[in-house]
Amino acid sequence: MIHDMNPILQSLKTRRSCRKYKPEQITREELDAVLEIGTYAPTGHGTQSPQMVVVQDKELRDRLSVMNAAVMNATKDPFYGAPTAIIVFYDSSIGNGFADGCMVMGNLLNAAHAVGLGSCYINRAREMFDSPEGEELKAAWGIAPQMKGVAICVLGYDNGGTFPAKPRKADYVIYA
Amino acid sequence: MIHDMNPILQSLKTRRSCRKYKPEQITREELDAVLEIGTYAPTGHGTQSPQMVVVQDKELRDRLSVMNAAVMNATKDPFYGAPTAIIVFYDSSIGNGFADGCMVMGNLLNAAHAVGLGSCYINRAREMFDSPEGEELKAAWGIAPQMKGVAICVLGYDNGGTFPAKPRKADYVIYA
Repeated sequence: MIHDMNPILQSLKTRRSCRKYKPEQITREELDAVLEIGTYAPTGHGTQSPQMVVVQDKELRDRLSVMNAAVMNATKDPFYGAPTAIIVFYDSSIGNGFADGCMVMGNLLNAAHAVGLGSCYINRAREMFDSPEGEELKAAWGIAPQMKGVAICVLGYDNGGTFPAKPRKADYVIYA
Repeated sequence: MIHDMNPILQSLKTRRSCRKYKPEQITREELDAVLEIGTYAPTGHGTQSPQMVVVQDKELRDRLSVMNAAVMNATKDPFYGAPTAIIVFYDSSIGNGFADGCMVMGNLLNAAHAVGLGSCYINRAREMFDSPEGEELKAAWGIAPQMKGVAICVLGYDNGGTFPAKPRKADYVIYA
């Protein structure tokens, strides 16, 4: 394959979910590089409809972790120790809103890998921010009521938390 | 910024929607490189729940174009002349299905740019494949009934169909 040496394809192919992080915080340069790529994700008609909220304060990060765990009646840290959380919100008032938010999530994860960070797609953001506590946080951040949680991208330095990809399923691609 | 020269970030940042294509078909190597990256998109619990159907046959591609245009009562080619269409389907029976499908779409678009192809996210796949004609095509391709259309990634050689990104909105990122 002529594309085997393409560094961009290699990076996209080798991105993996990281489920164990070092406690030390990532650099501002790393964070900003990841966020910028999030803002360049494709959105329907170029509306740039999603929003991202970055949390690095330890106390707030821990509070979000507890809220996220509560959605599944758990107490273990669902952020796997990651020190940074980027909450992606989508505009529920437009048809493409959720897909737009997903495009941002995907770009954050790919950008994180590109700068050598571990990352993971964390669910339950919708439930977290539909709760009274979540609505309060949204209001404090200036996030409009119609903005709903897509997911959370957690970031940090990999601490042995990634594993090789399983083989891809046989019928993933069908040639019509 | 230390990451300004990172070729992966540069590629992710400069991907744009292409809305005018040359008629000539892309190579098999280009197609396969893009599809492979689609299969490595993150999926909830690693389920690999989406499926992709590749269409390069001119007659079938044109039929899909007509079906897609019909959803919006239009007749103009909504694929902008692109010779290849990858339909992404998601599993509507699982909670993460649609998001999984979106992750595949995002990876296809990013991979297309990485190999120098133009691409565009085309909507209305859900309506197309919920129609009797669409259900018939799905059955012929061996796609299960619970698989629903996410979107279509069209691919081809850019024929002056991309434009620079507009400035990003001021409140895209909020630091909590």
